[in-house]
Amino acid sequence: MSRPANNIFYAQSGGVTAVINASACGVIETARKHPALGKVFAGRNGIIGALREELIDTSVESAATIASLRHTPAGAFGSCRYKLKGVDQNRAEYERLIEVFKAHDIGYFFYNGGGDSQDTANKVAQFSQQMNFPITCIGVPKTVDNDLPLTDTCPGFGSVAKYVAVSIREAGLDVASMCESSTKVFVMEVMGRHAGWIAGAAGLAAEQEGDAPHIIVFPEIAFDKAAFLAKVKDCVNKYGYCAIVVSEGAHYADGTFLADAGSKDAFGHVQLGGVAPTLATMIKAELGYKYHWAVSDYLQRAARHIASGTDVAQAYAMGKAAVELALAGKNAVMPIIVRESNTPYRWSVGEAKLSDVANVEKKMPRDFITADGFGITALAKEYFSPLIQGEDYPPYQNGLPQYARLQQVLVPKKLAAWTGK
Amino acid sequence: MSRPANNIFYAQSGGVTAVINASACGVIETARKHPALGKVFAGRNGIIGALREELIDTSVESAATIASLRHTPAGAFGSCRYKLKGVDQNRAEYERLIEVFKAHDIGYFFYNGGGDSQDTANKVAQFSQQMNFPITCIGVPKTVDNDLPLTDTCPGFGSVAKYVAVSIREAGLDVASMCESSTKVFVMEVMGRHAGWIAGAAGLAAEQEGDAPHIIVFPEIAFDKAAFLAKVKDCVNKYGYCAIVVSEGAHYADGTFLADAGSKDAFGHVQLGGVAPTLATMIKAELGYKYHWAVSDYLQRAARHIASGTDVAQAYAMGKAAVELALAGKNAVMPIIVRESNTPYRWSVGEAKLSDVANVEKKMPRDFITADGFGITALAKEYFSPLIQGEDYPPYQNGLPQYARLQQVLVPKKLAAWTGK
Repeated sequence: MSRPANNIFYAQSGGVTAVINASACGVIETARKHPALGKVFAGRNGIIGALREELIDTSVESAATIASLRHTPAGAFGSCRYKLKGVDQNRAEYERLIEVFKAHDIGYFFYNGGGDSQDTANKVAQFSQQMNFPITCIGVPKTVDNDLPLTDTCPGFGSVAKYVAVSIREAGLDVASMCESSTKVFVMEVMGRHAGWIAGAAGLAAEQEGDAPHIIVFPEIAFDKAAFLAKVKDCVNKYGYCAIVVSEGAHYADGTFLADAGSKDAFGHVQLGGVAPTLATMIKAELGYKYHWAVSDYLQRAARHIASGTDVAQAYAMGKAAVELALAGKNAVMPIIVRESNTPYRWSVGEAKLSDVANVEKKMPRDFITADGFGITALAKEYFSPLIQGEDYPPYQNGLPQYARLQQVLVPKKLAAWTGK
Repeated sequence: MSRPANNIFYAQSGGVTAVINASACGVIETARKHPALGKVFAGRNGIIGALREELIDTSVESAATIASLRHTPAGAFGSCRYKLKGVDQNRAEYERLIEVFKAHDIGYFFYNGGGDSQDTANKVAQFSQQMNFPITCIGVPKTVDNDLPLTDTCPGFGSVAKYVAVSIREAGLDVASMCESSTKVFVMEVMGRHAGWIAGAAGLAAEQEGDAPHIIVFPEIAFDKAAFLAKVKDCVNKYGYCAIVVSEGAHYADGTFLADAGSKDAFGHVQLGGVAPTLATMIKAELGYKYHWAVSDYLQRAARHIASGTDVAQAYAMGKAAVELALAGKNAVMPIIVRESNTPYRWSVGEAKLSDVANVEKKMPRDFITADGFGITALAKEYFSPLIQGEDYPPYQNGLPQYARLQQVLVPKKLAAWTGK
């Protein structure tokens, strides 16, 4: 090898967040400061970009453009839903990765994603050793679902938590205004197929008796229709209205998702992703209340305009720490967020082995959920509250947030086209 | 009459907005400065509060609490969907209103609502004359739908416009990130049953070729399925994805709402309010693209956290002007917003007769919509753009916006209970 393999390959993976680009910003700004490191190449559409040899050259972007990634939501380089299989099942993919890394003098792989991605990064670290082209693989944590183990929280979660808490507070006031003569029940569906962290965080909006949300439906608790309807009725009797937050993963005791329970669309297909309308119409049918419902979907995880300051700072810190861990000679690790204290909230950066992170899903502890299963406890609030603190507004022009526009210049290809995909 | 009838009755009407309380703030703060005026009583749940003699005494609230109404969404005193019938059909209601006004020395009625409400205010002005207890009736414009005539815009609209433009910009970036291997089509449903102003404003998010939203579906244009699907396909081919904004009032040429076109819920009821999932599943069925969809519902009109500075200022100004018009001896009028110039944007306060405002619905002009019916023109952007300018963030504590909490003290009743409702 005539040149040192000191370039960096950075890739975004899985569902994007309001702050994943802040991690990218942390990686690129930190790497630019270290003369031992080469260029940062970002995978176009994540790991697919490595397989296809579509590498975005971030070195052509100005410092100002890179800085603006900090306040830009979604994945600026493109992400993907593509999980590398095990080496035994698809060795060719791993060989291709190493081939591309070799061709472009890439010695570092920073993978910005959730549990699956950290599993992949770990495998690449091992395989590259075997191939005698050792790649330093560092994970950068990311997921709105907050389901990674070891780290106190995942960048991306704090901002969606803030979005859902602010939204249900605002919509709750709306319903309270109208309930005497109109809508009495409002159902807001939030993300979280397996873990109820996002739904739980919405509970922060309730500070006083009677505040919205009155009911939270978690995927951790089997849905009990009778108890749910009784609680809805009780809320309407007591407060005049009922504001409900439901996790998309809410399900019956037998595992059937509420959203799958029979709704068909105009074409006769079972309609997924509609747990909010399902609950709303259930309430109407059983209790007769007028309802409204909302499904924020991508809006919640892309809502950089209402990002948590804590979350943005942590996302950036994780990107920065990834580079620093690599420079310190670490491999197959991921920086994590360590909570030092709640009051005042203090956190530091720790590290975890990728092998300990991969494929473990952290659910809401039972003691974060009230005994009746429809709310969060003081312990949960103590955990959630610091994560939504601080406002980190993007710059605006003509009334709209100004988000980064990259040139997306690809590094010239050196290899034959990849035929695997 | 031993005392002068110089108290004010203020009521909120119809669907609430992010800034209707800013108008209330304008009314109350302005009234407090004028010694000729008595107390401001707010109707609990709007006009229903007058009929039931449930009058909230705003004079017990501190100046700081009243000031905080300016940044508080929804209806702080409660609103209602309750339209007074014509005097001929329900004379008893009008007599009851006058009886309550008389009992509480109310000489002024400020009605904060849309076209229906201004019609009611106008009737009360006429009827009170006949009853020899003349009430000064002033309308205060409000509606997220932006469908009142004569005024350049309606307070409430600018903020929902900003919310939908910001949201589709953010969600568009999200879909762009994921489209290579996952979601290719995103559909966001917005309010507007008869007029497409809100859907149109989302078009501000598109500043460059390829920006979201790529398609807007208006209630002003009969839905052409073939043309729509062709455009979706074209967008996905050109940009890799397609971001769509659809008005809840979108309909076929025969008047059938898209949202009514066959979806049934788990209980066999026709499911309303789901035009976004209807379009999304139509696209999936016909073109095979993976989709996501969002329905913001109340979130969009309650989103004080992303309110337009222009809108907040205009909402406040309308409340203030209502009091000033009353003091100037005007009756049966409504302050309006007059656009003086676009560049720079300048506006002033004018006035309109309630009789000219009542029951007229202002739709999007055809020249605001592109020839193909799926976008907005430069002329529309010129109109919309100033209305979303400026950020007017509420104060935050512990990561959440702090909204007004009123004592809601009712004025002691003097009359027998109302038996009409």
